Amino acid sequence: MSTTTATSGLYAKHEAAIQKAIEAVHARAFFAHYPEPPSKRIYGETANADGLAAYQTQVGSPFELRQDANKGLVSDETSPYTREKLNIEYPVFDAPETYVHKAQEAAAQWREASVETRAGILMEALDRVKNRFFELAYATMHTTGQAFVMSFQASGPHSNDRALETLALGVYELGRFPQDTFTWTKPMGKFEVNIEKRYHNVPKGIALAIGVSTFPVWNTLPGVYASLITGNPVIAKPHPQAIYPMALVVQELQLVLQEEGFDAHVIQLAVDSAEKLITTELAEHPAVKIIDYTGGNTYGDYVESLKGKTVFTEKAGVNSVIIDSVDNLKAALGNLAFSVSMYSGQMCTCPQNFFIPKGGIQAGDTHVSYEEIVEGLTQSIQGLVTNPKAGVGVTGTIQSEATHHRAAQAQKLDGVVKLGPIDIAHPDFPEARIATPIVVEVGPDRKDIFGQELFGPIVLIVPTDDTHHSVALAKSLAIEKGAITCTAHTTDPEMMQYIETQMAEAFTPVSFNLTGMFWVNQHAGFSDFHVTGGNPAGNAALTSPEFVRQRFITVGTRVYLP
Amino acid sequence: MSTTTATSGLYAKHEAAIQKAIEAVHARAFFAHYPEPPSKRIYGETANADGLAAYQTQVGSPFELRQDANKGLVSDETSPYTREKLNIEYPVFDAPETYVHKAQEAAAQWREASVETRAGILMEALDRVKNRFFELAYATMHTTGQAFVMSFQASGPHSNDRALETLALGVYELGRFPQDTFTWTKPMGKFEVNIEKRYHNVPKGIALAIGVSTFPVWNTLPGVYASLITGNPVIAKPHPQAIYPMALVVQELQLVLQEEGFDAHVIQLAVDSAEKLITTELAEHPAVKIIDYTGGNTYGDYVESLKGKTVFTEKAGVNSVIIDSVDNLKAALGNLAFSVSMYSGQMCTCPQNFFIPKGGIQAGDTHVSYEEIVEGLTQSIQGLVTNPKAGVGVTGTIQSEATHHRAAQAQKLDGVVKLGPIDIAHPDFPEARIATPIVVEVGPDRKDIFGQELFGPIVLIVPTDDTHHSVALAKSLAIEKGAITCTAHTTDPEMMQYIETQMAEAFTPVSFNLTGMFWVNQHAGFSDFHVTGGNPAGNAALTSPEFVRQRFITVGTRVYLP
Repeated sequence: MSTTTATSGLYAKHEAAIQKAIEAVHARAFFAHYPEPPSKRIYGETANADGLAAYQTQVGSPFELRQDANKGLVSDETSPYTREKLNIEYPVFDAPETYVHKAQEAAAQWREASVETRAGILMEALDRVKNRFFELAYATMHTTGQAFVMSFQASGPHSNDRALETLALGVYELGRFPQDTFTWTKPMGKFEVNIEKRYHNVPKGIALAIGVSTFPVWNTLPGVYASLITGNPVIAKPHPQAIYPMALVVQELQLVLQEEGFDAHVIQLAVDSAEKLITTELAEHPAVKIIDYTGGNTYGDYVESLKGKTVFTEKAGVNSVIIDSVDNLKAALGNLAFSVSMYSGQMCTCPQNFFIPKGGIQAGDTHVSYEEIVEGLTQSIQGLVTNPKAGVGVTGTIQSEATHHRAAQAQKLDGVVKLGPIDIAHPDFPEARIATPIVVEVGPDRKDIFGQELFGPIVLIVPTDDTHHSVALAKSLAIEKGAITCTAHTTDPEMMQYIETQMAEAFTPVSFNLTGMFWVNQHAGFSDFHVTGGNPAGNAALTSPEFVRQRFITVGTRVYLP
Repeated sequence: MSTTTATSGLYAKHEAAIQKAIEAVHARAFFAHYPEPPSKRIYGETANADGLAAYQTQVGSPFELRQDANKGLVSDETSPYTREKLNIEYPVFDAPETYVHKAQEAAAQWREASVETRAGILMEALDRVKNRFFELAYATMHTTGQAFVMSFQASGPHSNDRALETLALGVYELGRFPQDTFTWTKPMGKFEVNIEKRYHNVPKGIALAIGVSTFPVWNTLPGVYASLITGNPVIAKPHPQAIYPMALVVQELQLVLQEEGFDAHVIQLAVDSAEKLITTELAEHPAVKIIDYTGGNTYGDYVESLKGKTVFTEKAGVNSVIIDSVDNLKAALGNLAFSVSMYSGQMCTCPQNFFIPKGGIQAGDTHVSYEEIVEGLTQSIQGLVTNPKAGVGVTGTIQSEATHHRAAQAQKLDGVVKLGPIDIAHPDFPEARIATPIVVEVGPDRKDIFGQELFGPIVLIVPTDDTHHSVALAKSLAIEKGAITCTAHTTDPEMMQYIETQMAEAFTPVSFNLTGMFWVNQHAGFSDFHVTGGNPAGNAALTSPEFVRQRFITVGTRVYLP
């Protein structure tokens, strides 16, 4: 149980930042602790070159962690840019349960550390990761296939900010009820009863964080930090195709833990390969009490079904676009074209189904036909992806062969292809695995096609009777299949309210009338609750209070004072 | 989604009390909004007589609710005092799903009501129930078999305070993040992005509250209030043997709802009888999203296994007593004797297994033998239950024939009977179903006997090698079988810390050195977290923040500001 006496020097160092983050959590206004642009001005003249050099040094070499191992495993990681294996060897255990035993050995010390001690260590690790944002960006780029800028932002500052958000929320929740012993006095008429009371926030057990290949840090670090701040040791199990980014973060955490006198096994990286996956054995181990999971539905549903575990999932959803009316059609379509092209539709927040009234819509002063809207969208996508300055910088590459295959097959869907694949090349990586958005029109009765997540650069256009029809389809999809986002364009306040209310009943956040430099794909730390937990797309939100609270139990002690 | 404009007059009336309760929730110090003793001074000279008259008028008559029904059902309720049926007829639907449809019809209006409107209505209903505490006490007494004073306190002020606690926590959590639309501004170097943001707390769906026969209001009302304050309509499904107490509360809620222009079906009472139980059909209905359950493990495990539901359970546990050392043996044993006699062991917080070192313990300046301790305990129980002034006022009666049978069979357990049944009569109710605590000694290797909950007045004494042995047994039982409480007596601060730490690892609260007028059975509202949610005895605590937060989803809306 935590003691409040041993405040670490690291906490004092970071206290102001943590307190500011706690305020930010509750304000929900814009807050960024870690600067977002990969600029020389902020990170230093040589940061980019140093990061690239560090990445190049790591590739082909063993990865050094401060955790025990009985052998090395050369990972499956392959760059979607070069199609070459990274050939990084990670320390591993033959028997997955050894990770659990190591976590159990490290558990007591971490549990007994004060919240402040834990917070100081966790914050310090984030600051050190910050010094390696460029290396982290290259590691992310060459595993996920994201473009460089997204790799930098997503795995770097955005992940760090999400981690800080859970850390701050954890500090708040852990300190929410009296932390010191106090006397509870009950008046009983002529006398009174006095009881000494105190509460202990007891961590639930060992936490397992199961990573995904597309966002290996962003989707994993919040759960890892939520478990760690609440006193649970963590086993991070990255996707076999995207290990290096999370390995870098674990490396920094382990170093700080050791410096502060803790067993580095408070956080372990449990690497596996497609040849022999270890996730199920870890997940089913009785000592594993908390599981964070990002990935597909089938395995996600299995994880959620495990008895005696506290499970947080982010699974697949089907995100909708509802087009009702616009001020400026070109601006709206330009924004949507960017949203579906960004990282080639490999974001869980990316729109898939465009519901558009077949009779057309009002755009400013004029009425535009359904066909004009579809053509405007396809032209906008085409212009974006073939733009030599933007192009592959927006789409990045395709992480997996499976997604690439799915995109290639999309033309064969039982619909009308409105935009086929466009052949674009990467100026620096001729071997890059690239796919541009395919746009296919299918009828509103073809839920068999649009009622499933087609992960990757696949856009479906569905002509509807009217906006109410569009909303009904989007809502039913969200309820049945899940949805993480919804995008809508309307100039009618009543319609806005209608869409908002209807989609809220499906627990789906709606972003209205996005144009310019802001896209539905972006869920801001400290402000947006990413994944609501209300529909099948996942059972928890980043970062709502229960995401942290469910990781520990408050246990009370009462001592009678005669 | 909730609007903040329509503040009800009832909220203004109760605002100060609600704000005070929110402070109390976070202080965890003593707080009682509703006065506890059934005194004439507080409740009025005629309150008792009026309550009894109201009870007598209700018995044998139809119970009036403001909810639709297509027939009446005369309940199974039978007084454990008179052994006579209450013959109360409740309005019911033939088809259980009709309750769900009625709840669905009432849902939108309740969901769209502001938090303040909901809070005002809920608070007003509590105040009106307060005016009927004496009738509620008689209704509780003649269904649960509790003695009068416990019936009054448990179903009256203690239930109301627990309901107020969840209400207050709900108001706090629902207002925790910005409630008004605000502008989120992200600096982007030479320009900035402005997004209008707002959040909606969306209730999860229909809530089902499954009651228990022993504490029909205390165990049910917190979940009901947590669901209602967060905007979910509730179907309260009482135990077929204990309907009247909760019916009275539902009646008052429905009246206030109607007065305030709401559909009374926001809360419904769904009565059934042993002949045709309806709980499973209600629980499995897809529209039922939240389930609160108190009762046995088998059905509780089933409820927890239902997919797509948010479930809160309080199931059975095996509570331990660890005797290490005492200042005053007689005071300690007197307190323990009271704890096991109170309501004849039919409280989920009642101790069952006494772990006592076989070599005896230190009591003040002297060493007392194991046999002396056991004899002291049995004598203390005997003295208490045969005391003409206390006696049946402490034990009350036995709620069910099954419990009575179990108590009668306890003498046949494979152990040494240290105290057999004592024949005591109730001065006012010659037919009362009474059983006094049976004390049986079993060896520390007989986990087959002491490792199960023997609900009712059954005490097991287990001689151990030493206190470490006692703690190991108590801890393993809590982990494997669950525990809601643990009682320990020790004068050694190091041992206290050891017991506290060990039992905290089993997520079990420990009460130390209780003597005098305070017993482990009591879990105070606003201060103690009742059931921790960490071991098999239940998955949630009354009333920790997640007990409320998991009943709604925060959904965000974003509107681009060009």
